[in-house]
Amino acid sequence: MKQGLQLQARQDDEAIQPKICVPLVGESATALRKQLKQGSKQSPEVFEWRVDYFEKIKNIKTVTKMAKDINRKTKRPLLFTRRSEAEGGQATPLAEKEVVNLYEAVIKNKAVQGIDIELSQREKDIRHLQGQAQEKGIDVVLSYHNFMETPPSEVLKEKINNAVDLGADVAKIAVMPQSKADVLKLLQVTEEMSREIPLPLISMAMGGDGMISRLAGGIFGSALTFASGSQSSAPGQLPLADVEQVLRILDRNM
Amino acid sequence: MKQGLQLQARQDDEAIQPKICVPLVGESATALRKQLKQGSKQSPEVFEWRVDYFEKIKNIKTVTKMAKDINRKTKRPLLFTRRSEAEGGQATPLAEKEVVNLYEAVIKNKAVQGIDIELSQREKDIRHLQGQAQEKGIDVVLSYHNFMETPPSEVLKEKINNAVDLGADVAKIAVMPQSKADVLKLLQVTEEMSREIPLPLISMAMGGDGMISRLAGGIFGSALTFASGSQSSAPGQLPLADVEQVLRILDRNM
Repeated sequence: MKQGLQLQARQDDEAIQPKICVPLVGESATALRKQLKQGSKQSPEVFEWRVDYFEKIKNIKTVTKMAKDINRKTKRPLLFTRRSEAEGGQATPLAEKEVVNLYEAVIKNKAVQGIDIELSQREKDIRHLQGQAQEKGIDVVLSYHNFMETPPSEVLKEKINNAVDLGADVAKIAVMPQSKADVLKLLQVTEEMSREIPLPLISMAMGGDGMISRLAGGIFGSALTFASGSQSSAPGQLPLADVEQVLRILDRNM
Repeated sequence: MKQGLQLQARQDDEAIQPKICVPLVGESATALRKQLKQGSKQSPEVFEWRVDYFEKIKNIKTVTKMAKDINRKTKRPLLFTRRSEAEGGQATPLAEKEVVNLYEAVIKNKAVQGIDIELSQREKDIRHLQGQAQEKGIDVVLSYHNFMETPPSEVLKEKINNAVDLGADVAKIAVMPQSKADVLKLLQVTEEMSREIPLPLISMAMGGDGMISRLAGGIFGSALTFASGSQSSAPGQLPLADVEQVLRILDRNM
């Protein structure tokens, strides 16, 4: 039995051995199965199904069945994510109410081990889905993405505290750096907040400048890094093999 | 003809493709030649002779001859360094005056492409050696090492500015982090100062916590990273092959 996402909260000043998550971004069932098969040859610890890429996202039954199907085919925890267009996802025909219905069905069927909900969604919806997920032992990632810029540290900390206050199991922030200094700002917030909050924190600076945060984030307290299998789902994502190699080198020399 | 250390000063917010320097720490001529041969099989761009490890350091003629000998055997620039015990080097029988004499002879013979002088040395000596080195086209690295802690950012910036004011060709700071936050502090100072000063800057946080600064320092403006051939010369130094591999991965994905 797979239980939740099995991410690690940071202890004091310790580094985290971050887990690697490969996003599945297929548009069809065939493409998804192929990506899962390719990814499974290597050793990511988590898969994320980015359902906003899925052409049949409108069909709740098909989505639920597909989630269960992916889950059955892998021993790794599966994170279910509809990334909104506003936060860097694909455009979908779903109204927000339909998104909630979709998540409800996936939760009810215990089709996944984790769900990603955006902090920008309605608080009522977040609390509702959070309660349902908790009953089923499904981890809730409360997330914030900014594809334009890196807001001030105070704003980032507030987002993380929001996630904690809303009962998240995992907090996630992803930002776009506009300078190398922004990358260090993201790492500093990660370093400070991962010691303060009692939950695992996932963070990254996107794009080429932010690449190092995807490799060294664990040192500063990020519990999960996303790496691309056959296709990346966000700017700056590195191929899985590269991430594995760097993490191995860091671990070996620690 | 090898000219200086050929390090790169940072342009604006650009990352630097850092060069790799392998320190030669042999106690005897035989050990040094062996280390040079091993190191040359891989591709460090610079060698540093840490003469404080050399058993015949008292013999100026032997040291000068050895430096020329190493230099002849490699196409890469050679940096000549007597690291003082106070800044993490080996204990030697040399009085400070004898150190200056040793450097003078090495410079006069144009036996190397760069020399490392510590900012803690007498200002008179620094200016004297700096003038002589300049005449011979030898680069001067003015360096600061703290094996105990990471001083406040202001202190680190002052050290770098000192180096610039004294006419250094390269400024170098190496500190011991006492927390992950200290590592980010070092990277931040590097990021800021490498944009401000007109010379190449070398920086690192030592020890296991600081390891990431040896791999990602270039992104934030450090021009050189030290990697160990057969034997490391400072805590946290990674094997040359590991550093090369990570830099290749960073470069490939930039």
